[in-house]
Amino acid sequence: MAIREKVFNIIISCFKRHGAETIDSPVFELKETLTGKYGEDSKLIYDLKDQGGELLSLRYDLTVPFARYLAMNKITNIKRYHIAKVYRRDNPAMTRGRYREFYQCDFDIAGQYDAMIPDAECLKIVYEILNELDLGDFRIKVNDRRILDGMFAVCGVPDEKFRTICSTVDKLDKPDVLPLDLAERLLQDPKLSQNKQACAGLTDMKLLFSYLELFQVTDKVVFDLSLARGLDYYTGVIYEAILSQTIPALVSTPAEQNGADEAGVSVGSVAGGGRYDGLVGMFDPKGRKVPCVGVSIGIERIFSIMEQKAEASSEKVRTTETQVLVASAQKNLLEERLKLTNALWNEGIKAEVLYKKNPKLLSQLQHCEETGIPLVAILGEQELKDGVVKLRNVVSREEVDVPRADLVDEIKKRTL
Amino acid sequence: MAIREKVFNIIISCFKRHGAETIDSPVFELKETLTGKYGEDSKLIYDLKDQGGELLSLRYDLTVPFARYLAMNKITNIKRYHIAKVYRRDNPAMTRGRYREFYQCDFDIAGQYDAMIPDAECLKIVYEILNELDLGDFRIKVNDRRILDGMFAVCGVPDEKFRTICSTVDKLDKPDVLPLDLAERLLQDPKLSQNKQACAGLTDMKLLFSYLELFQVTDKVVFDLSLARGLDYYTGVIYEAILSQTIPALVSTPAEQNGADEAGVSVGSVAGGGRYDGLVGMFDPKGRKVPCVGVSIGIERIFSIMEQKAEASSEKVRTTETQVLVASAQKNLLEERLKLTNALWNEGIKAEVLYKKNPKLLSQLQHCEETGIPLVAILGEQELKDGVVKLRNVVSREEVDVPRADLVDEIKKRTL
Repeated sequence: MAIREKVFNIIISCFKRHGAETIDSPVFELKETLTGKYGEDSKLIYDLKDQGGELLSLRYDLTVPFARYLAMNKITNIKRYHIAKVYRRDNPAMTRGRYREFYQCDFDIAGQYDAMIPDAECLKIVYEILNELDLGDFRIKVNDRRILDGMFAVCGVPDEKFRTICSTVDKLDKPDVLPLDLAERLLQDPKLSQNKQACAGLTDMKLLFSYLELFQVTDKVVFDLSLARGLDYYTGVIYEAILSQTIPALVSTPAEQNGADEAGVSVGSVAGGGRYDGLVGMFDPKGRKVPCVGVSIGIERIFSIMEQKAEASSEKVRTTETQVLVASAQKNLLEERLKLTNALWNEGIKAEVLYKKNPKLLSQLQHCEETGIPLVAILGEQELKDGVVKLRNVVSREEVDVPRADLVDEIKKRTL
Repeated sequence: MAIREKVFNIIISCFKRHGAETIDSPVFELKETLTGKYGEDSKLIYDLKDQGGELLSLRYDLTVPFARYLAMNKITNIKRYHIAKVYRRDNPAMTRGRYREFYQCDFDIAGQYDAMIPDAECLKIVYEILNELDLGDFRIKVNDRRILDGMFAVCGVPDEKFRTICSTVDKLDKPDVLPLDLAERLLQDPKLSQNKQACAGLTDMKLLFSYLELFQVTDKVVFDLSLARGLDYYTGVIYEAILSQTIPALVSTPAEQNGADEAGVSVGSVAGGGRYDGLVGMFDPKGRKVPCVGVSIGIERIFSIMEQKAEASSEKVRTTETQVLVASAQKNLLEERLKLTNALWNEGIKAEVLYKKNPKLLSQLQHCEETGIPLVAILGEQELKDGVVKLRNVVSREEVDVPRADLVDEIKKRTL
């Protein structure tokens, strides 16, 4: 939880820096809301028992509830993040951060805006978060469903097979990353340039990269025609971020690779998203559309990586933030210890005291060592008489007598 | 969500100040884990549909999962808080903050310690939180199940009726609060003083109040023999905090009063808890006991109060923290706006930009007014030439030209 809190703080700070508000939605959705949104993965949805009333299911992701919320509340523009748990009756793979209950961490921009500006901001956000989390080098692959669809059309694939083929392309072994001037070359292809969808996608791709240059993120972003993504609802730009470093626990077994991934993204990826302009309309009685673009951070996988990093390092992760333990080496000083602890709490100091009448000094020091408390404030008859407290640094064992009136400042100074 | 975030921050800071770590547990528990823990309220438990595998239910509170977690992991001492949603198939009462899905906010101390020290800390925590939330005057009623049981025994109530009577006493119209010297008087009662349980409870009550005096909270804490609390598992001290101020939405209809309350506490109460020394043992194969004492903050009710306060006040609650909107009064400056916004993000400034090529200055200013953004950084041909940015205070409409190099400091200075 301590590691998770750090990761959340970095991500939430980034979302707030980009002006997002947060919303919450119930863990239940009407069963019918989820029906027909996830293709064959629908079998992984958890249903509630019919105990009377509406038939309910547990949310499978945060995107469908978000779209339902926008339609139901007639919201036509919002920039929001939502960090919450979702549920899938899948085969867990603990070391890879794949569970039946897991966090999703979504940022989305809904609204009718000029092309590619919010899309570019989503990519900037992925870039900032992966940089700040310090997970090593990464790259962000970008493609556009319209380009893929255009290519399928030109190759003679029937319309109704587009989504199935996307799903298949997404599972292929990926070729090397292709350069951006590819967009230019594809636009000059005699057949493809006749396809409206493909042209729109390619023109937007060029526009997107011009904004990404202004956002100074093109060193990590690559146009990759082989990126398809599994989800049905994407209608434009799609993207996926992949760590360059191979992390052992993230290398899945072939059996796992055949299953759907927790964020609908391929193995190794830590963020993914894209534009879905049709989903909100599915929940509006009049079919009114609200264009959306968003990104989902693969936060469970990031937790796994951070936890493994913490385990590998010699430094112990603290689970509390206590600054000082109020202790005594002598008997019958419980009241004095409680009084001092109370005074420290009242001054905003994070303080603990052992719940024993006469604890041994050794066991008090051991508690500090076990939980990483850096300071001990030691009370004794002599200290009480002199109006001082002996402040001990747990690691260096250095001790200094601090006048009672200076104690709070001294603790703050030594634990900042 | 903005209001909730503020409340959470106050509560979590307090828990951390008292040295607590946090844990998380799944929203599912095995159905059998919850069976037989909630008396007749068990009918309110949500079950999952049997889709193969274990039979699961949604957690009904955080205390039973905590006890299950301690027993399963053989943890014999921990000080933890847990803020998470629980689920009850109850009749919702929205204005009173009673929902089928709602947050619980629990702090518990598990471990074999000297009497009443952790119990006193729990009461100190309730006192601190209610003070800091600034909800008006309050009082905390304290009693002990052993005193109640002793009195029932002395009155000739058969053992197996104790818990039912507790439940009934808890629903009675409460008499005036009784003073602490009551403990002394009861200890001198010829019949009651012969009852072991009652004597232990009364002696501990005196000890508890001596610690509460050291913690400087006795101005709000009262010994109230009529407090019984509904839950079966309490074995010692019990307590409940009540706001003195009557908040209209919190006054329930008689129909609602008959139902169980969301935190198992009576109407008007905003925190409750007590000692439950037997619960962990119910989950341990060898019945090993881990004594526990804890408190649950009635956070949904507090949210309701805070939301009503916010609605009543003229000040609008901001849902974002954006410090500055990067704007322009002229056309064709999208690239310059994006560049400046990017630079501000990179410097850690919370900045927004409208996703339009050529937005009108008026609509940019309106966005600030609607969402409470305090500053606008305005770019124009002249400003770009001069290397300055026009910084406008949205409320006062005052404008000042700031050299580009000083912009970040100037924004920080004006938004702290």
